[in-house]
Amino acid sequence: MTGTPAPGPELIGRAASPGLAAGPVVVVDVLAGDVAASGDAHAEAANLTRALETASAQIAGLMETVEPEAAEMLEFQLAMLEDEELTAPVRAAIADGSSAAAAFAEGLDAVIADYRASQDEYFRARTADLADIRERVLRALSGKASEAPVAGAVLVGKDLTPTRFLETDWSAGGGIALADGSPSSHVAMLARARGVPMVTGLGAFDTSDLKEALVDGDSGRVRFNPDEAARRQHAERAQALAREAEAAKTYLGRPAATACGVPISVMINVAAPEEVDALDPAHCDGIGLMRTEFLFHGAGGLPDEDSQYQAYRKVLEWAGGRSVTIRTLDAGGDKPVPGLTVEESNPFLGCRGIRLSLRRPEVFRVQLRALARAGCRGNLQVMLPMVSMPEEIEAAARLLDTCVAELHAEGHEAVRPPLGIMVEVPAVAVTPERFAAAAFFSIGSNDLTQYVLAAGRNSPDVAELGRADDPAVLALVASTLRGGAAAGLPVSLCGDAGSDLAVLPKLLACGLRRVSVAPAALARVKAALAGMRLGDDG
Amino acid sequence: MTGTPAPGPELIGRAASPGLAAGPVVVVDVLAGDVAASGDAHAEAANLTRALETASAQIAGLMETVEPEAAEMLEFQLAMLEDEELTAPVRAAIADGSSAAAAFAEGLDAVIADYRASQDEYFRARTADLADIRERVLRALSGKASEAPVAGAVLVGKDLTPTRFLETDWSAGGGIALADGSPSSHVAMLARARGVPMVTGLGAFDTSDLKEALVDGDSGRVRFNPDEAARRQHAERAQALAREAEAAKTYLGRPAATACGVPISVMINVAAPEEVDALDPAHCDGIGLMRTEFLFHGAGGLPDEDSQYQAYRKVLEWAGGRSVTIRTLDAGGDKPVPGLTVEESNPFLGCRGIRLSLRRPEVFRVQLRALARAGCRGNLQVMLPMVSMPEEIEAAARLLDTCVAELHAEGHEAVRPPLGIMVEVPAVAVTPERFAAAAFFSIGSNDLTQYVLAAGRNSPDVAELGRADDPAVLALVASTLRGGAAAGLPVSLCGDAGSDLAVLPKLLACGLRRVSVAPAALARVKAALAGMRLGDDG
Repeated sequence: MTGTPAPGPELIGRAASPGLAAGPVVVVDVLAGDVAASGDAHAEAANLTRALETASAQIAGLMETVEPEAAEMLEFQLAMLEDEELTAPVRAAIADGSSAAAAFAEGLDAVIADYRASQDEYFRARTADLADIRERVLRALSGKASEAPVAGAVLVGKDLTPTRFLETDWSAGGGIALADGSPSSHVAMLARARGVPMVTGLGAFDTSDLKEALVDGDSGRVRFNPDEAARRQHAERAQALAREAEAAKTYLGRPAATACGVPISVMINVAAPEEVDALDPAHCDGIGLMRTEFLFHGAGGLPDEDSQYQAYRKVLEWAGGRSVTIRTLDAGGDKPVPGLTVEESNPFLGCRGIRLSLRRPEVFRVQLRALARAGCRGNLQVMLPMVSMPEEIEAAARLLDTCVAELHAEGHEAVRPPLGIMVEVPAVAVTPERFAAAAFFSIGSNDLTQYVLAAGRNSPDVAELGRADDPAVLALVASTLRGGAAAGLPVSLCGDAGSDLAVLPKLLACGLRRVSVAPAALARVKAALAGMRLGDDG
Repeated sequence: MTGTPAPGPELIGRAASPGLAAGPVVVVDVLAGDVAASGDAHAEAANLTRALETASAQIAGLMETVEPEAAEMLEFQLAMLEDEELTAPVRAAIADGSSAAAAFAEGLDAVIADYRASQDEYFRARTADLADIRERVLRALSGKASEAPVAGAVLVGKDLTPTRFLETDWSAGGGIALADGSPSSHVAMLARARGVPMVTGLGAFDTSDLKEALVDGDSGRVRFNPDEAARRQHAERAQALAREAEAAKTYLGRPAATACGVPISVMINVAAPEEVDALDPAHCDGIGLMRTEFLFHGAGGLPDEDSQYQAYRKVLEWAGGRSVTIRTLDAGGDKPVPGLTVEESNPFLGCRGIRLSLRRPEVFRVQLRALARAGCRGNLQVMLPMVSMPEEIEAAARLLDTCVAELHAEGHEAVRPPLGIMVEVPAVAVTPERFAAAAFFSIGSNDLTQYVLAAGRNSPDVAELGRADDPAVLALVASTLRGGAAAGLPVSLCGDAGSDLAVLPKLLACGLRRVSVAPAALARVKAALAGMRLGDDG
């Protein structure tokens, strides 16, 4: 008999991923590495080699199953595991008589301290990955398997490594409650993408007697070992939320419209073809944004025409006759692609999107050819990211025309899809009439906001400045809509603002009637629209 | 008798600094460092120590005489000379029997190769500084003094080190013609600031028989050992240019106006108080922008209130009753300040200007107190950089009010100067009416352009996108002027666009009537205005 632990106080941290979770506590702890040396330096060195290989193999396996953003992170970890600069001092310590575990823990702790002290936020952000590697290799050295998974558990600890998150089966629910951590960490982003409620920054607390936890990822509260009343209250709120979500689902099958009956197109954003597998195309008005960066992060280097064609074709065939807007490669900025992008002092103001594609026509042509071929399989539109001058549309159109002509000459089936543009560089939103050669506009509210406010999306120090409902951003959304209407072009919005229910009414008030949102937000947005009246923009 | 060398062909490179120069050739060569070891490792090590000290002392001496931008660069060189990571391998090679010169040359060559191969443009740009250090230390080791200066010489070589440029006396004219180099190098920036004609990228050429050179920094052409006809033609063009410049000077003493009689305020931008020493305040309509970053680059850390007060007072007293607009610290972006700014992944979209000042009120208050005290000495206006929200003006105004009240309570003389803002974040130019709490607007065309086009000022790959006369930028200049007029606020422009004679007519057509330009451009701009008719915006 384990006894009933005393009810714990409610801890307040920072909401990192919304939703409610309740479940048994599983404490995730950092391994110490204080293992005594066997005295056999050769054996310890061989143990290290084996553990590094095991860790690499595990990460490589994990890469097969995860979303593209996570795969990028795992690629960094793999590279670190193979980095001599990391392992050479560890091997030296082993040669000096240390155990493999102690040497590796100490070596990693030193690198982690270095990264944490760095002036550069890129390095600071990588400390979680290093902690992840440390953990995995120590576990491999200890010979222990990971603990048996507990279905629907709440993971509790100082911090959580990204791969631990990725290895966890969240299908039966569960949540995360951390003493440290940050809402802008990799794990928090992954948690939001998978819908796992998460609270960070709870401060140090004793984990020794924790059995059960209630996590409120909306308000940032966590209660351990709840009493019956707290448990019941939590369950009631969870049921109410679930009923709301269930009720929202009833809107999925119907065309979206406001309370006053104005129809709104609601499309979805997809980042990889597999995402559509679980979705019913009848629930949306097509795909407003299909990203293509995932194709460029494979192990095999830049993707060939046929692998691109297959990916585009899959999504077009899924959509049936619905419109599918595929964006050409938007590398650069915060999305480096090895062999294609270069490091820059201000990558968000650098050679990214269409700028990069036009500089590398040999790479761009492969994508345009694949798109032109896939266009025969559905209702395809092609969208150019980061356009800032009309000449860029002209240059891309010429290249696309050439590709189509070549494909026809080679005897391939191919169509010339309409070519539209992202409206994310302020210049386009200020003078949209100059860009009437585009077939359509799609407002990228995230980038537009960061440029209009000169506040980097990934800069925590200025995050509060970059609000998509800043009056200047809304003025440029309205300007884009007026410019599109004057030129007879459809205008949609595919940034996060479209699924932010506090911002959406303001966008409708600007005249927006077409949004494209994450698949997970589809039901919620359609349900919320049904409760909005035009003019209700607060 | 040296004989008359054969006339050389005309070489074509890239124009790096405008103007014409003609003069005797001085070849600047890279020292080889192939000095045999003396066999006395102790003596060689002592030689190295002495040479490093000599080099540091020379650089420190040079720092006293140069402009703030150059001083920053010299600070980097000083830091490198004191960096153990650089000198340790050199000392090891000396201990192994190498001569100090050979060891230092080899050590620096390895670091230079590393920097040159870097993916990071910051490191690549620093290779010139490393070459500079190499040169200086090898020269100190050789015991040779620098060559005797040749008045009005054209410096010719593969590349030119920044300190060699700074040590040269350009008062008698002269120019620069380089086989390598780049218009975006430090030396090129310095050459433009000092008015030294310069051409880069001429490609490899034989320097063995060069006596005389004609440099055309406008077209990027260089002719070595010219014949009489070429020499005469060059002299005629130089005289014509000089006559134009002389004629322009006649405009200095008169109020500026267009050909159609519309008066235009022409103010000057200054970066350091000493710049006004050689200027007649009657030649301008005041100071439209006094930068204050120079105060924060001294060796003694952040400047105290009194040293700031003295700097502001000097400029206000120089100006007499003319308006002097002093901008509060605009650190961050491409202007790091040790102890104040942090490294960011996109510094231009980060914590810079007023954002940084409001986060560091203990630093900001010192500046505001110094400004309020200096306000008693002339016609002062204070300007906030990088404003993107009206709340930032309010917060700065509250802090300024508090500082003035405190100064009065302490028995100091102090005034509360009007508080205006830079218009450089697009949000302000899009919705200027929200910023009517400012006392004036000053358009920062350089930053505004980089944000509106999302094209970094320092990113060579996207430089051609960032044109100040992009229609969207001009539309936002017009929007700012309309917003200022509606709120009864004066609007000026203090970016480079104001002295670009191809852009200035377009700015006048937008309604601009107040510009602030570099002192060196004052005569040229006033003369050009006298030839412009409103409506002549091409």
